[in-house]
Amino acid sequence: MTEQIALNVLGKIKTPWLTLDNMPIQPIGAKGVIELFPEYYRGIREIEHFSHIILIYQLHLVTDPQLEVIPFMDTTSKGIFATRSPKRPNKIGFSIVEIEKVEGNKIHILDVDMINDSPILDIKPFFEDFDNRFNTKKGWLTNKNNINKHHFKSDNRFK
Amino acid sequence: MTEQIALNVLGKIKTPWLTLDNMPIQPIGAKGVIELFPEYYRGIREIEHFSHIILIYQLHLVTDPQLEVIPFMDTTSKGIFATRSPKRPNKIGFSIVEIEKVEGNKIHILDVDMINDSPILDIKPFFEDFDNRFNTKKGWLTNKNNINKHHFKSDNRFK
Repeated sequence: MTEQIALNVLGKIKTPWLTLDNMPIQPIGAKGVIELFPEYYRGIREIEHFSHIILIYQLHLVTDPQLEVIPFMDTTSKGIFATRSPKRPNKIGFSIVEIEKVEGNKIHILDVDMINDSPILDIKPFFEDFDNRFNTKKGWLTNKNNINKHHFKSDNRFK
Repeated sequence: MTEQIALNVLGKIKTPWLTLDNMPIQPIGAKGVIELFPEYYRGIREIEHFSHIILIYQLHLVTDPQLEVIPFMDTTSKGIFATRSPKRPNKIGFSIVEIEKVEGNKIHILDVDMINDSPILDIKPFFEDFDNRFNTKKGWLTNKNNINKHHFKSDNRFK
């Protein structure tokens, strides 16, 4: 018997990308807006003083989660939890995004690679003193660190 | 009408901390084990070649989510999404943890500050080339960067 947890959708992420097909390889410069539902407005007070936030959301257009995938940047199959592929159980997306500005209850963000209307599950302030890590072992991603970041991220979504 | 999403619990995080009350201020040295349910075993193949993973889980013992909190390190109330307090809507926990070793289907991790049996929602490899950020604006956390990291994290959980 599968154990489940029900989460409330807190709002939606508005972006220019309406489908996976029309999303460009490099979403640099693409802007988005986080629109929380009114009952959560109070929760973002003082978020405008941070430059970066952690967004946890659902990759809602993914229809066929897998336990193993061949990632875009490789040729052999890996366990899904050793990749950042969106085709994962629970379809949870994780992005660190930069805040452009906060206007009223709308958080304007930069370089978005989410599909329009992605359901928001949580927002946390990014705090580099706690969240950065150095000298990490990078598994199959070793020697792939010179790949353009935006290229990687969005292409991965097409898988 | 509240929109909801149902997620499957992928497994549990085993730690020495059975309740909030017995968790020490500094869990440095505390070890934990990620135990996925058997149907997800295939998903961790090759994860042993990474040193750090991103864990997304539920803060299952939190009973009273709030939209505003006074964080441990401050004296005035902030919006919950401008803090890392566990008392958040959806009770989603996010931790970057170091892998000690992988034995069969068990991922042994270091310096855990999760409560025993926390339900796992996702595991992603940490990739410092993409996940670190620098020169960020730190909001109310500015000038609090010399506080002991482990002290902060676990104390925050007692709020």
